[in-house]
Amino acid sequence: MSHAGKKRKLDKTRQDRLYFDSYSDVTIHEEMIADHVRTNTYRTAIFRNSESIKGKVVLDVGAGTGVLSIFCAQAGARKVYAVEACSIAEQAAEIVKRNNVDDVVEVIRGTVETVELPEKVEVIVSEWMGYALLHESMLNSVLHARDRWLKAGGLILPSRAELYITPISEPVAEERLYFWYTVKDQYGVDMSCMSDFARRCIKNSDVTVSTVAVEDVLSHPARFAELDLRSVTAEEVRGVKGRFRCESFGSAAVNAFCVYFTVTFPCPDNAHSLALCTSPFKPETHWKQAVLYLDSPVEVVQDTEISGEVSMFPSEDSSRHICIHVDYTIGEQKRQSKTFSIPDWTSDPQP
Amino acid sequence: MSHAGKKRKLDKTRQDRLYFDSYSDVTIHEEMIADHVRTNTYRTAIFRNSESIKGKVVLDVGAGTGVLSIFCAQAGARKVYAVEACSIAEQAAEIVKRNNVDDVVEVIRGTVETVELPEKVEVIVSEWMGYALLHESMLNSVLHARDRWLKAGGLILPSRAELYITPISEPVAEERLYFWYTVKDQYGVDMSCMSDFARRCIKNSDVTVSTVAVEDVLSHPARFAELDLRSVTAEEVRGVKGRFRCESFGSAAVNAFCVYFTVTFPCPDNAHSLALCTSPFKPETHWKQAVLYLDSPVEVVQDTEISGEVSMFPSEDSSRHICIHVDYTIGEQKRQSKTFSIPDWTSDPQP
Repeated sequence: MSHAGKKRKLDKTRQDRLYFDSYSDVTIHEEMIADHVRTNTYRTAIFRNSESIKGKVVLDVGAGTGVLSIFCAQAGARKVYAVEACSIAEQAAEIVKRNNVDDVVEVIRGTVETVELPEKVEVIVSEWMGYALLHESMLNSVLHARDRWLKAGGLILPSRAELYITPISEPVAEERLYFWYTVKDQYGVDMSCMSDFARRCIKNSDVTVSTVAVEDVLSHPARFAELDLRSVTAEEVRGVKGRFRCESFGSAAVNAFCVYFTVTFPCPDNAHSLALCTSPFKPETHWKQAVLYLDSPVEVVQDTEISGEVSMFPSEDSSRHICIHVDYTIGEQKRQSKTFSIPDWTSDPQP
Repeated sequence: MSHAGKKRKLDKTRQDRLYFDSYSDVTIHEEMIADHVRTNTYRTAIFRNSESIKGKVVLDVGAGTGVLSIFCAQAGARKVYAVEACSIAEQAAEIVKRNNVDDVVEVIRGTVETVELPEKVEVIVSEWMGYALLHESMLNSVLHARDRWLKAGGLILPSRAELYITPISEPVAEERLYFWYTVKDQYGVDMSCMSDFARRCIKNSDVTVSTVAVEDVLSHPARFAELDLRSVTAEEVRGVKGRFRCESFGSAAVNAFCVYFTVTFPCPDNAHSLALCTSPFKPETHWKQAVLYLDSPVEVVQDTEISGEVSMFPSEDSSRHICIHVDYTIGEQKRQSKTFSIPDWTSDPQP
């Protein structure tokens, strides 16, 4: 483990400061704006809901560069409060001005938990999702804002979140273990015994955020949790949990689970709601997928049942960091379990 | 800036612990062994010097997985002391045994500064180089070992190090700045004013470790420093410094300097010494190149002179971290200067 992976207990204030600081670098904003699936889905969702936004007051929780607030202004909002805790709020204010919507959009630097708005709002919009939905997510802030500022019957965008799990056969980890068997041919030194050490390092309990290829997915994904964002409580979010059951498409070696999420937006004029889906079967987003390695691969054949229960809860070290516990049974194997967590590095912008 | 980029003053013991811990993960060892240029050049150098190694005592400083020690055993060493401070030493001992050289190679877990060997050595071998040669490098440990354990006239592999600088025109940074001008066409929101913020974030004083493409190099590289590892002192290494002078190949916009290194091995039977070169003109290594962004691009034409002085010195925050100060004049422009440092993340193995 590198020192970046070391767990530290941080006091709440320091945790918050680090959290807000980490969003001041341009890289994360560039990545989010350049994520077409993310930005276009929000844009479409906002415009499709323009009947509910027109002439109304909107609160954008964690506004970042202010792009969602500007979409709401373009959709006809009377007033948009763009609340942003970190220094990117300065850029948001400049962007708002540049787009001639500074009469509608008011950028407020502060946390949504402490901000005082002059009025209640009819709409809340927020892009609050983290890796595996809940890692370093702003969902608690959105729920706080909803309970404090949203009028009864108000609109919340997105309005629903779902979590999925699927068994996968991920080749990179196995190739990395196999590498140590190839060293002898290359340099005349047998390093095959490094493979066990590599297994302990690679197949540890850290969640890996990476892109899962469609061909590595071994079953139809199973939904294990659903959050109705109009009613879910912070208490419920602290203990998201659900059962799953999958059947293998064919013969393969399961070496990991893949966890991903979908959020959906209500669409008044359309039978279908609009979804922002981070599935491996959909175009890639900057969230990629969360990969949870099993300690060793398990062989499955067609229709082998893979079932169990997933629970997600805040890490003891930092309430913003999420742990994922999976209890699972693969075919005739006895029930096993493993608890994963997302290491610190995922929130660090890389140059 | 992310919290990973925050500068912290650490006491020496903690610095050392973090340093040694960060090498226990398999990723860094995999990257080093898989780096063919690195591992093959050392292997070739050791075998070409087998006349000086045969029947002799060798000290491997920072042995890691022990691969260089085993090469020395294969080249006929009577005894190899493989000194390694971190827990990878356990794997090294296992690898040594597996290769049936445990009668020759003795893995010693400890720092070379404190280790007690039963005898002096005729050869020191070490792969001590860091990013930009000196970042988190083990060179001081090698010099300590040389002064303490190497017999007079002994062999040191490698025996020489050189540092080079060249002006480059690096397109990625400019493309990232331009991105913000493209947002309006994509989403109908003018975010062009983010470009200035992006410039401050991207063209900051952090050294970027990345691969420089040959076509982005704007002149013949200039050597600005040379270290004779048989005689250089730790004091001299703390203030490596030298002048450079380049002439532009043609018309371009200089937006960065690229710094890289070469180390060379003596080759007794050969007029040419053997070099491990991390130049952009050579096959890629895991060191890549160090890229130092100027605050803004400067136009040059063919034969425009780009000259100045580079100095490298330990950071105040951590003696293992290197700062690079460049004083430079481009064509008729007035002399400018900028001090760069390598942020913490470079030493963190990424999953």
